[in-house]
Order: sequence, then C-alpha cells, then structure tokens
Amino acid sequence: MEEQEIVELGAQLPGWEVTDDDGIRKLKRRFRFRNFAEALAFTNRVGELAEDSQHHPALLTEWGAVTVWWWTHAIRGLHRNDFIMAARTSAIT
Amino acid sequence: MEEQEIVELGAQLPGWEVTDDDGIRKLKRRFRFRNFAEALAFTNRVGELAEDSQHHPALLTEWGAVTVWWWTHAIRGLHRNDFIMAARTSAIT
Repeated sequence: MEEQEIVELGAQLPGWEVTDDDGIRKLKRRFRFRNFAEALAFTNRVGELAEDSQHHPALLTEWGAVTVWWWTHAIRGLHRNDFIMAARTSAIT
Repeated sequence: MEEQEIVELGAQLPGWEVTDDDGIRKLKRRFRFRNFAEALAFTNRVGELAEDSQHHPALLTEWGAVTVWWWTHAIRGLHRNDFIMAARTSAIT
C-alpha cells in the first residue's frame, strides 16, 4: 500500500493507530472492558471473525482490556484487508 | 519474595522465564500450537483457571502460539502464587 493510502484509510478507523513493530506496520487498538470475563469474551468474538475470514490477528487479553493487532504476515505489513478486519473488529465490541 | 527464592522456584518451572517489564517482574512462557483455533482454546482454558482462582494473567494469542505472563498487580511483581499459577498453566496444555 502507498503511504498516503495507509494514512487515509487509517483516518477512517477511530481508535486505531498504525504502529511500527520492528519494521512491520500493524493496525493496533486497545479495547476496554469491565473485567476479565468480558475481555475474554471479546477475544473469542474476534477469534471467530478471524477463523471465518482465515485471517488472524494478535490479541492481548488482560483484566479489563484486549489489544488487537492486524497485519498481513505474508507481506510483513499492511494490506487493505487489514483495514477491513479492523473495522469489523470495532463493530463487534 | 527474596531474589534467591525467585531463582529457586523459577528453576522448578520448565519453559518459564522471569522477565522484567518496566521494573515489574513477571513469569513468562510461550506455548506453541498447530493453528489459531488450538491457541485460542488454550487461552480459554487458562482464562477458566484464572476466573476460578480470581487471579488473572496477560495472554497474547496468535496463530500457533499463546504467550502467558503471570504476576501480582497489587505488589507490582511476583508472589509465590504466581509460581503456582504458572505450574497449573503448564499442566493444562
């Protein structure tokens, strides 16, 4: 993806940021919950979305929060599909 | 906990390492799985253990791996209980 497109698509995803993780760009967002059980329930919803899409994020589950990172392993960076997955993730909170 | 006790108890936990995360010591282990679904299933087993114990780790779920960190938030470091939880986590892989 072109840099300009990453910036433009990123701007359409409230709460998400583009991070650089050892040279690999990823979309990252931290979602807050009331406790561990609600955080884990969200992790499972995102997991179901991932399995349905055959595209898998990294998910950090903690008491009261889940951090999600989307990127495309094969290209070691961001693909348009990651922006779609991020929007779908926001929609299932 | 005394430093010596941390080293001694840590040595009894194969695969686990004591990490220093911005001054907070944690027990960390990365568990490998064959795919995302098996990784997420393990995350849920650890989550159930955590809820039963009312003590909660951080869990990074990825395609083929789950990284688990145990520490005690209230003391910003390690308690004997964290070593017990780590051993119980290893037992449910």
